[in-house]
Amino acid sequence: MSNSHASGHHQPIVFPPHARVDLRKFDPAATNGVEKEAAEAELIGLRVRLNELQNLLYADARYAMLVVLQGIDTAGKDGTINSVFEQVGPIGCSVESFKVPTPEELAHDYLWRYHKKMPERGHITIFNRSYYEAVLVERVKGIVPKETWEQRYEDINQMEAYLQRNGTIVMKFFLAISKDEQRARLQERIDNPKKQWKFRLSDLEERKYWDEYLDAFEDALERCNTKHAPWHVVPADRKWYRDYVVARALVEKLESLNLRYPPAAPEVLGLKVE
Amino acid sequence: MSNSHASGHHQPIVFPPHARVDLRKFDPAATNGVEKEAAEAELIGLRVRLNELQNLLYADARYAMLVVLQGIDTAGKDGTINSVFEQVGPIGCSVESFKVPTPEELAHDYLWRYHKKMPERGHITIFNRSYYEAVLVERVKGIVPKETWEQRYEDINQMEAYLQRNGTIVMKFFLAISKDEQRARLQERIDNPKKQWKFRLSDLEERKYWDEYLDAFEDALERCNTKHAPWHVVPADRKWYRDYVVARALVEKLESLNLRYPPAAPEVLGLKVE
Repeated sequence: MSNSHASGHHQPIVFPPHARVDLRKFDPAATNGVEKEAAEAELIGLRVRLNELQNLLYADARYAMLVVLQGIDTAGKDGTINSVFEQVGPIGCSVESFKVPTPEELAHDYLWRYHKKMPERGHITIFNRSYYEAVLVERVKGIVPKETWEQRYEDINQMEAYLQRNGTIVMKFFLAISKDEQRARLQERIDNPKKQWKFRLSDLEERKYWDEYLDAFEDALERCNTKHAPWHVVPADRKWYRDYVVARALVEKLESLNLRYPPAAPEVLGLKVE
Repeated sequence: MSNSHASGHHQPIVFPPHARVDLRKFDPAATNGVEKEAAEAELIGLRVRLNELQNLLYADARYAMLVVLQGIDTAGKDGTINSVFEQVGPIGCSVESFKVPTPEELAHDYLWRYHKKMPERGHITIFNRSYYEAVLVERVKGIVPKETWEQRYEDINQMEAYLQRNGTIVMKFFLAISKDEQRARLQERIDNPKKQWKFRLSDLEERKYWDEYLDAFEDALERCNTKHAPWHVVPADRKWYRDYVVARALVEKLESLNLRYPPAAPEVLGLKVE
């Protein structure tokens, strides 16, 4: 991944449906002219507003929101969740992390275990990795043959369109970091006693597939970037910019729904409690 | 519920196992000599510490924590969750709210649906209402006969002992409010357009069973207050004191577990990432 762009260079976050994103020319250190101090100050307000909007989403009870976070190891999925959702109460907001499938899950179609964890109306559910792993790790590591993963883009587009038609807003974020940044973050996990428990030797093995992962991400970003469920490609080398971009996109989307508190039933107005 | 005690009066929070708590003599406005400003200042630090301890609980991976919140309508279960867990990230902390059982849930034993939602190791799960409803609303409203709910205290004690033996720390909080305070809070829901959606006419119906609920709570607090899963009886008329008591109890319990970051495998130390 190239670092040759000046970070003042404008780097789009959202692309036209099915446009090809060249990740080797994408600048993960881009900040699009945004100043760190200004972004951090605005983020404080965005976090508070996100909590208000989730409460309103709950009261309104018409929509659910699915937030999909993808990125290569150490891209900062956990850190993004902890920062962006810091002010959002846990009652209507949950995180689903998907691990190695169980035998029961493997005995079903591959989307089954994800569908079970979709948000109910009024809730925000964050998928920390998601069904996109079926066209990422399963493709890169050859867990399924090409004829299988090839057809999955269509499966995923159909499921996301179905979710959208039924009131679930789908917001997808690819956190893009540079290969150098990953090296630094893996090294930090090895060297910092408070982070060593997160490190696995297999992380180094995965790093060898960097280019294959970029190819797989490029295909997923192209083929599953739709009007109803657009991908956001987030420059994520700088954590403050990454969090700012994600928080802002979520707040803007929720604002656009015109959520409202449902009116009280006529017989409730003016009642006195004894 | 009496308000005759001065709020400086010392009101125990935890009682000896199987002691009877007379809720009609319990002061829900008690603050036990704690000053509001001091409690609010301390709460800020307790929230941050609770997040650190949850991260450590996750890294340590030996224990899970179940937090049970019970209280009469408007006792402040949602408010307590939002305040106490404000700084705790959503990755390892979730809330389960139990609604009217589905036909599938009713076809199983009554603890089945609660067992399914128990926390995994490293996580804190908050039950916003819980299996205690089986000896509260189901008793008060006559949903099951006395011979059925009578035996449930033993079922619950056995389940909680089993959880404790298997690494799930069980922390139970009964939020005690006065009948006057409930009146004020219900009236606020009726009068405030942003809260009307929370109000149901059935809330007024439930209020008529105030004394029956007190009796049911007293029995649950006596028969299920055990060494391995003690009840905390929290004076909850004053929200700042309620939140302070709950946050402090959780932090103290987690501190007592001597959680630690697991040491790295010897082959990881000194590795250099390429």
